[in-house]
Amino acid sequence: MTARTDFFAPTLDLTHGHVDLTHGAGGRAMTQLVQQLFVQILGNPHLDAGNDGAVLPTPRGQLVMATDAHVVSPLFFPGGDIGCLAVHGTLNDVAAMGAQPLYLSASFILEEGLALADLQRIVASMARASRAAGVPVVTGDTKVVPRGQGGGVYIATTGVGVLRDGVDVHGARARPGDHILVTGPIGEHGLAILCARESLGLATPIVSDTAALHGLVADLLQAVPEVHVLRDPTRGGLSATLNEIAHQSGVGMVLEEAAIPVRPAVAAACELLGLDPLDMACEGRMIVLCPAELAPQALRALRAHPLGREAAQIGAVVSDERRFVQMQTRLGGRRLVHWLAGDPLPRIC
Amino acid sequence: MTARTDFFAPTLDLTHGHVDLTHGAGGRAMTQLVQQLFVQILGNPHLDAGNDGAVLPTPRGQLVMATDAHVVSPLFFPGGDIGCLAVHGTLNDVAAMGAQPLYLSASFILEEGLALADLQRIVASMARASRAAGVPVVTGDTKVVPRGQGGGVYIATTGVGVLRDGVDVHGARARPGDHILVTGPIGEHGLAILCARESLGLATPIVSDTAALHGLVADLLQAVPEVHVLRDPTRGGLSATLNEIAHQSGVGMVLEEAAIPVRPAVAAACELLGLDPLDMACEGRMIVLCPAELAPQALRALRAHPLGREAAQIGAVVSDERRFVQMQTRLGGRRLVHWLAGDPLPRIC
Repeated sequence: MTARTDFFAPTLDLTHGHVDLTHGAGGRAMTQLVQQLFVQILGNPHLDAGNDGAVLPTPRGQLVMATDAHVVSPLFFPGGDIGCLAVHGTLNDVAAMGAQPLYLSASFILEEGLALADLQRIVASMARASRAAGVPVVTGDTKVVPRGQGGGVYIATTGVGVLRDGVDVHGARARPGDHILVTGPIGEHGLAILCARESLGLATPIVSDTAALHGLVADLLQAVPEVHVLRDPTRGGLSATLNEIAHQSGVGMVLEEAAIPVRPAVAAACELLGLDPLDMACEGRMIVLCPAELAPQALRALRAHPLGREAAQIGAVVSDERRFVQMQTRLGGRRLVHWLAGDPLPRIC
Repeated sequence: MTARTDFFAPTLDLTHGHVDLTHGAGGRAMTQLVQQLFVQILGNPHLDAGNDGAVLPTPRGQLVMATDAHVVSPLFFPGGDIGCLAVHGTLNDVAAMGAQPLYLSASFILEEGLALADLQRIVASMARASRAAGVPVVTGDTKVVPRGQGGGVYIATTGVGVLRDGVDVHGARARPGDHILVTGPIGEHGLAILCARESLGLATPIVSDTAALHGLVADLLQAVPEVHVLRDPTRGGLSATLNEIAHQSGVGMVLEEAAIPVRPAVAAACELLGLDPLDMACEGRMIVLCPAELAPQALRALRAHPLGREAAQIGAVVSDERRFVQMQTRLGGRRLVHWLAGDPLPRIC
């Protein structure tokens, strides 16, 4: 993304204008969009420099790189929009590697006809999320696709960070005996999207939990650098994420149904719709696996942070060659926590 | 992008199968696609580790980060496809910053119904380009959008590299007197796409110039570290790119029409279609601005590399407060090289 000098006679009509194909075509119109919207809103010295990339100070320590494409529909939903989600999603992937995120890049695929006012709102949300997180968007790109070949806007973000000293978190490090923690109630993002899309008028509207978790993770790792696994339960929810970890580590897990935090509105909506909260995506929660003796310390650190107040221990890792994730139900029985073929909803994040 | 352990009973039907929404939904089907296609083809220790990001050795020197979304249509064209283009495009942006690219990330937005055989071909082309360049795809992500909300496949890639010592290339560093070089004939990518899309049956098919230029740039900067500006003339072609640089640096330029390398097939097709080769995208050429006295040395270094054999000096930077890019025509006149509102073609890269 390049910011050119300000020599344009016309200005973008941000109130009534729409994206058209020239906005992605490498000429004056694209420069105008980049400069008057993206750089104006996301501006920082790296973007302002106006080159096809950014030159950045190199951190001490190992680099971490993570990327995510964001295609959520609708673009705006209770609790957020695709702009802040595109920042949070990638920051959380970097944080889940045990790293401190430092820089973000953003690639936009805009659909012809998108209202510039919507794009402005999305980029402003992105800027707020990026500033709140202290991680600038240092470089970007914009393409425009013809009407009917996109979804309004898709945003692919990539994060670069630096691994914390002495930290080694990895999906294959779960060990029998580890305790399984979650940093807050589950299923809110998935249900917020579903309700927004289907215009379900629930008595209590469900709000996405989308949030940047690197601060919470920093506090956790400061208190307990021995954490074994961190992963954010996005698409596929808790059930997919725990099954993934069980398979990567070659272990089983036993969850306590009664211990898993689920807000009443989410539980009620899931009941109504025949969905399992365990399958519903979160965008502001982290799963933490750590040695049992350090779990109380980890919980204290999580609960001391505003984004971890409702952190809970929800189960433990067990030895199991079949790599089953099981649940001790409220009724005293045990059931398998299945790993669905896919999330029940497309374009969830 | 996460590679899970190999515990799936079914295997992907790469011959007759198609992408469906479960392939992007965070469950077993997505893991199957990631593992049996992406990791299988792009595999390297970082991807194989199966986490949501990659941990990477930190280079000495300043980091460079660049990103590009790729939405080219058709997905396959003479001389390449969206897979190799997505590698080349971002490597060239990193190279144009004067940096050595080290790592790539890739975010895929797949459209429901895409043939898995096509996806495999695209990812294989990406893997070949990445291996030929010596720059691995270390992390990735896959989303699937419903039919009619995509373009088969879109690929956003981000590159991280390290700035070369003693190099300072930047769009604002053009100085009156600098010579303007181009590393090869122009307009081939844009015309190859146009001809492929419109099924124009030219006597001589035009082949895209898509190529990774970081090796060529490395040789150039080894010989002439004093280069002022590097930029690849992609969307909008030579005319947009030179106008951008003129505006960033506050200078004018005078080009020599007779010196600009254009292959006869490109010149003929442009003549026929009423297009100007200067407006047509390149994906394997670099514009180089350097002090006049170093231009012969720069040209020698470029021409010694297989991708720079046809490098030419095409003009010079002049003092001009109006920042005009002008062309000395073959007929002895002068004309302004306009900067179009946009590239004449959507989805060119």
